[in-house]
Amino acid sequence: MRPSGRQTDQLRSISIETGVTRHAEGSCMIRCGDTHVLCTASIEDRPPPFLKNTGLGWVTAEYGMLPRATHTRGRREAKNGQTGRTQEIQRLIGRSLRAAVDRVALGERQITIDCDVIQADGGTRCAAITGGWVALRLAVNKLLKAGIVTSDPIKDHVAAVSCGIYAGQPVLDLDYPEDSEAGVDGNFVLTGNARLIEVQMSAEGATFSRDEMSSLLTLAEAGTAALVDAQKAALA
Amino acid sequence: MRPSGRQTDQLRSISIETGVTRHAEGSCMIRCGDTHVLCTASIEDRPPPFLKNTGLGWVTAEYGMLPRATHTRGRREAKNGQTGRTQEIQRLIGRSLRAAVDRVALGERQITIDCDVIQADGGTRCAAITGGWVALRLAVNKLLKAGIVTSDPIKDHVAAVSCGIYAGQPVLDLDYPEDSEAGVDGNFVLTGNARLIEVQMSAEGATFSRDEMSSLLTLAEAGTAALVDAQKAALA
Amino acid sequence: MRPSGRQTDQLRSISIETGVTRHAEGSCMIRCGDTHVLCTASIEDRPPPFLKNTGLGWVTAEYGMLPRATHTRGRREAKNGQTGRTQEIQRLIGRSLRAAVDRVALGERQITIDCDVIQADGGTRCAAITGGWVALRLAVNKLLKAGIVTSDPIKDHVAAVSCGIYAGQPVLDLDYPEDSEAGVDGNFVLTGNARLIEVQMSAEGATFSRDEMSSLLTLAEAGTAALVDAQKAALA
Amino acid sequence: MRPSGRQTDQLRSISIETGVTRHAEGSCMIRCGDTHVLCTASIEDRPPPFLKNTGLGWVTAEYGMLPRATHTRGRREAKNGQTGRTQEIQRLIGRSLRAAVDRVALGERQITIDCDVIQADGGTRCAAITGGWVALRLAVNKLLKAGIVTSDPIKDHVAAVSCGIYAGQPVLDLDYPEDSEAGVDGNFVLTGNARLIEVQMSAEGATFSRDEMSSLLTLAEAGTAALVDAQKAALA
Amino acid sequence: MRPSGRQTDQLRSISIETGVTRHAEGSCMIRCGDTHVLCTASIEDRPPPFLKNTGLGWVTAEYGMLPRATHTRGRREAKNGQTGRTQEIQRLIGRSLRAAVDRVALGERQITIDCDVIQADGGTRCAAITGGWVALRLAVNKLLKAGIVTSDPIKDHVAAVSCGIYAGQPVLDLDYPEDSEAGVDGNFVLTGNARLIEVQMSAEGATFSRDEMSSLLTLAEAGTAALVDAQKAALA
Amino acid sequence: MRPSGRQTDQLRSISIETGVTRHAEGSCMIRCGDTHVLCTASIEDRPPPFLKNTGLGWVTAEYGMLPRATHTRGRREAKNGQTGRTQEIQRLIGRSLRAAVDRVALGERQITIDCDVIQADGGTRCAAITGGWVALRLAVNKLLKAGIVTSDPIKDHVAAVSCGIYAGQPVLDLDYPEDSEAGVDGNFVLTGNARLIEVQMSAEGATFSRDEMSSLLTLAEAGTAALVDAQKAALA
Repeated sequence: MRPSGRQTDQLRSISIETGVTRHAEGSCMIRCGDTHVLCTASIEDRPPPFLKNTGLGWVTAEYGMLPRATHTRGRREAKNGQTGRTQEIQRLIGRSLRAAVDRVALGERQITIDCDVIQADGGTRCAAITGGWVALRLAVNKLLKAGIVTSDPIKDHVAAVSCGIYAGQPVLDLDYPEDSEAGVDGNFVLTGNARLIEVQMSAEGATFSRDEMSSLLTLAEAGTAALVDAQKAALA
Repeated sequence: MRPSGRQTDQLRSISIETGVTRHAEGSCMIRCGDTHVLCTASIEDRPPPFLKNTGLGWVTAEYGMLPRATHTRGRREAKNGQTGRTQEIQRLIGRSLRAAVDRVALGERQITIDCDVIQADGGTRCAAITGGWVALRLAVNKLLKAGIVTSDPIKDHVAAVSCGIYAGQPVLDLDYPEDSEAGVDGNFVLTGNARLIEVQMSAEGATFSRDEMSSLLTLAEAGTAALVDAQKAALA
Repeated sequence: MRPSGRQTDQLRSISIETGVTRHAEGSCMIRCGDTHVLCTASIEDRPPPFLKNTGLGWVTAEYGMLPRATHTRGRREAKNGQTGRTQEIQRLIGRSLRAAVDRVALGERQITIDCDVIQADGGTRCAAITGGWVALRLAVNKLLKAGIVTSDPIKDHVAAVSCGIYAGQPVLDLDYPEDSEAGVDGNFVLTGNARLIEVQMSAEGATFSRDEMSSLLTLAEAGTAALVDAQKAALA
Repeated sequence: MRPSGRQTDQLRSISIETGVTRHAEGSCMIRCGDTHVLCTASIEDRPPPFLKNTGLGWVTAEYGMLPRATHTRGRREAKNGQTGRTQEIQRLIGRSLRAAVDRVALGERQITIDCDVIQADGGTRCAAITGGWVALRLAVNKLLKAGIVTSDPIKDHVAAVSCGIYAGQPVLDLDYPEDSEAGVDGNFVLTGNARLIEVQMSAEGATFSRDEMSSLLTLAEAGTAALVDAQKAALA
Repeated sequence: MRPSGRQTDQLRSISIETGVTRHAEGSCMIRCGDTHVLCTASIEDRPPPFLKNTGLGWVTAEYGMLPRATHTRGRREAKNGQTGRTQEIQRLIGRSLRAAVDRVALGERQITIDCDVIQADGGTRCAAITGGWVALRLAVNKLLKAGIVTSDPIKDHVAAVSCGIYAGQPVLDLDYPEDSEAGVDGNFVLTGNARLIEVQMSAEGATFSRDEMSSLLTLAEAGTAALVDAQKAALA
Repeated sequence: MRPSGRQTDQLRSISIETGVTRHAEGSCMIRCGDTHVLCTASIEDRPPPFLKNTGLGWVTAEYGMLPRATHTRGRREAKNGQTGRTQEIQRLIGRSLRAAVDRVALGERQITIDCDVIQADGGTRCAAITGGWVALRLAVNKLLKAGIVTSDPIKDHVAAVSCGIYAGQPVLDLDYPEDSEAGVDGNFVLTGNARLIEVQMSAEGATFSRDEMSSLLTLAEAGTAALVDAQKAALA
């Protein structure tokens, strides 16, 4: 049995609330159970230096946690000096979102997705990707509406979910009590079309088999499909 | 006329919502018009090193802005390398709250007040003090209820408001459009009993007279009295 | 009685010696009792980046303490990583001096005022402002004499003094033994014409009334008038 | 055709030379084609602070590149301020090796694996894991021989290889020209017993299917089996 | 001819004024022509961590320049992030002074010599050593007088001077105009007894012969003898 | 007797292997006994900013130690935050090599010599200079061969050796056991023509006489002559 009483293939309750801050070009608050992440998209009219005069745009992400998003108070992190974990997460978010973006259609501009964890209960990086995509979508809609961008640079939905082996069982969407006990856990990023963008599975202490890997992927496919539905509902 | 259409002595609409995050010992979201600040209080069982074996407790604060709390995206800041402005603000918050705390009654522990600006429209440091006091009050209530602290270490309310000279007129509770135009502006921190804790008035470009200083203080007395009422209502 | 035997409204003995270093465009050593601050003004022919092509000049300040200016040895500080206290002080010095400068008349150049405390006995930030103004005046005189600047950009004198409530009494120009005991203390920056530029009053532990605030301001008006006289004498 | 002329399932030539530095408790130079990594294992008699009095040991890794290991000269990196890429890599190396270590048997000590890339031609992180395991094995052999550790804490071999989709084809052991062109690439860490420790697949620009993922894993199983044979030969 | 009109073997005018700051255990202002360095000695009752329980004391130095000690304004430097030049100089000062100290007689304490250049005109590191020794001597005198140290830990005077080849001629005590033109220059640290502590000669652009090296050393012997006399006079 | 059994004037066995890495424009591994340093030369087509439009080139050096090059594991160092020792060493290497370079003939380009200590047994900075010169020579040969530089900018060989007073005797080429015991030690950098480039002698604890200085220099002249022969052999 899972600590939350959920079925092995059951997601936490999801809510995605859009338009939550005045200044950002796109924003949402995503809540996956007790994990709450504020995602904002900020458009800059010029690309990062390495893309000058290439005709290509860029999508990047930053990830942060409010100091008391967790059980014990953590430290604020700046752009220089982030922990390895934070850097891994924000690189993952950026890479995942870019996989669904046509950078020629976007043109020479940069969109920064800030994902700030207001409250954490496991799965924050996956919530950040799923919510970050919504903020990105809203910001790009603005560009399209204003005629600044004429062909939609977003090729598909992007959503992410964690799966792991908890108490010997493959389970979907780990919360913190499960995450801290799981011998194997993975993050899966998929498109709306069920194509894979990123798979990260790792074992600390235990190891896993090809079959277990396959089971987790099957759970992830169902989970991300439901998350894509939630994205669509939020944007409707 | 003020850009917002308010009277010269009119505060923005205030709301203080308590208990907004699961993990913190005390928390609130304070909204002063379009300025929204999430305040959390985190208790640690031991004091900072310089107070070891003194019998005294400590209250300190950290202040941050989400990158897109403002019109243009800002940088994340860590504990080392914060701008001078951020350091000034968090030192002010800590000093202001400590002025109303009996550190002997608190005992050898530390309470950290994190004030994270979710959305900014001027007056963030004052909102942080007013909301930070509520978070502190809630955390101390927990200590009292658990019998860890037996005599209430909080001696009075603490609330803060900005006033300034805008378009030649003394006005209460500057919002961003006013703040960026005002030749003189000040922050006033007062107790529930209308005693002064901190007065900071500064002119860049203009200078001001003793009489103008006095008018601003009169506005601040009325403004903080109303904020103290809002604190009481939120805690009721 | 004050530890130094001074009257409540008595300044420490002041001396301002100009031209103390060869290389700086303006310099003085200001001694307020046992507080000694070396102030230099350095002119750069171009403004800081944010003022390029605006026609405006800039005056900024840096503040430092020699490691053994104080009772116990302190740490050297660089531009990045200064303590909050140091940053607050140098921001205050810069803001105070700019309030008396016509930045159009100064033109697109920058003057940096370095205030290095050689020996500290309380009131270093106020001594730095009063002495810093003299260094600025001397540097601007050079620009005027050379015809680089044709209309005097300095509109008035700027001088600063601290006042506080020590042993229940409002007193002028706190030295270190008083400063470390005072429940309330303030820094007042005024022009030669007795207009206010900056008022910073703060209480740690105690609070204060409107009347006490008023008494301190009266002391400060007399104190800064005497400091302005000392500036005039030094420049004569 | 691959740029190197290799078959799609062909590893680069491998050599593992042990005992290459005097001071380290274990060391080897691993050469996978033109990728050369010096791996050393350093034993410390005490565990990291977070493991004090737990009875558990720790294995950790640091990864570096000599400035001219690559086509264009790079920057030296210190422990603080490493790039996100470097941190990701060294976290992966440490996690991978720990998965095969019985930390109770190791006891309260720490082994640090330094992996310094002398020359880079793709696949440095995988070479570091495969070579790092050999250095770790040699250091642990010393502990066993000296009777400091009595039961072998290493449970199995650990080896890693990259696979990717290059020019539409799944290929084993990408070199730099392939790596910089591949739309999808992955790193696979397996035990001597063909159990999975870590799978990291990512797409930038392209996406991939479940079947492609499966093909890459099949290549990786064969590749790591050959690498484990090379480890055995080097230690024989 | 030298720019200053001095003979090739002529020192600049020297003055050493002791007791220039209130707080330091020993202090002097040394003036070698237009090079002015404030030297203070600060005693700490405990040695640096690496000397705990060894019975040995430590003497160390820090070197700094006020931002406008030079022709163009420089940057403040903190303990972390000092330039290589600054670190070289302060390591040299510390090493030079320790060569004349009996660290057993000093006992487990640390004396820090701060050398702050108020005005620079070449030869600042040598002035810092010569003046630093006086500050050290005064601080140790205090320890002896108080009976905290019973046997004099200072074995001899230490003084330093620069020499170089300027316009083809070996000259003593280079000032800035000479220093910036000299093809070869050296710093020589000697004891009161004319024993060598440190010799640093370097050429950038030119090279030098054994004979030239010998001539410079002869000049340095005479120069440091005169500096030792100035030390004695200052302490008398 | 020396710990190694060498004569007082006997160098350690030397080997210089060229062309050890693919990417660098010049490279060698120099082995002086158990001290092994990998030296690479990297050419950049533009000079450092301070030499733009001067027609002059630049040669600079960076020095590093692999973490386990020494008996106990050390820390990685980046360009910012290197220890004073590291900075001194790399400044010495750069200065020494530049002394033999005609910077006009080199033209507006920069050559960076990276000296990475793979294994340390004393004398690493001297080995770095001697090996660094070989890497520089090879890189410049490439520029000459390609016709990018037409007149040879290298005027002479540069080689370095340490000497010191060990057990009362002047000895050549100290290894680590000698270095850690020597009361006086020096580094001598000479040209192929036996001209001096740099002499650094220092005593910690002891002092030395003019005669001892002379003996060490005599040893160094013979030692560097042998090292120059080894350079020639390696390049033949």
